[in-house]
Amino acid sequence: MEINLPEVVAEVKVQFDRYEKALTGNDVAVLDELFWDSPHTLRYGAGENLYGYDEIQAFRAGRPSKGLDREVLKTVITTYGRDFATCNMEFRREGVAGTGRQSQTWVRTPDGWRVAAAHVSQLKP
Amino acid sequence: MEINLPEVVAEVKVQFDRYEKALTGNDVAVLDELFWDSPHTLRYGAGENLYGYDEIQAFRAGRPSKGLDREVLKTVITTYGRDFATCNMEFRREGVAGTGRQSQTWVRTPDGWRVAAAHVSQLKP
Repeated sequence: MEINLPEVVAEVKVQFDRYEKALTGNDVAVLDELFWDSPHTLRYGAGENLYGYDEIQAFRAGRPSKGLDREVLKTVITTYGRDFATCNMEFRREGVAGTGRQSQTWVRTPDGWRVAAAHVSQLKP
Repeated sequence: MEINLPEVVAEVKVQFDRYEKALTGNDVAVLDELFWDSPHTLRYGAGENLYGYDEIQAFRAGRPSKGLDREVLKTVITTYGRDFATCNMEFRREGVAGTGRQSQTWVRTPDGWRVAAAHVSQLKP
């Protein structure tokens, strides 16, 4: 298994950046697009555990659209072969103590790269 | 890509269970074995962000060996093809408010299944 093939990393980074832009801009259509449409998909969020695409989509639709800005402090993208990747990053939100962490596992599907599992949490200072 | 091939899920579950037993029993040798020995490996823990196998190993070696027991509440193992898996679970520790979440991305290496990325956090009630 080849780790971090440059063209695969580049592909994933494009989608990772799209996700970040969509998240801070609350572009729900893109967020919905980039999560794998599957009952297996899950997202452990800062304040909720969501199982399956439908729960994630409902959460997005009901989410307040303000206060989503965040500063990315550190990003690690690792690809495994051509079809799997992990994206991990630390971030900071203005007025929020400590450092946020976002972990995503991406899978190449017939429709493109999608997040199959995600976990977001706050590391208290 | 075939999702949840029964024999692959079974393989991963064996290692997932070994990890859980080693974690609660503080069997550092098994914990070290089951993390991918790579500078790309990372672990966002309940109280720390660890980058690279060496940081994870040092953390294990210095960890108190008491109070590690936890009750597993819910586990979701998903495999993607034959070489990639995500394991997510919720747990509870006695005397700790809220629910813990543990996310792991597993990769089949030449040495066997290994955790390439992990994230542990507490969801406050």
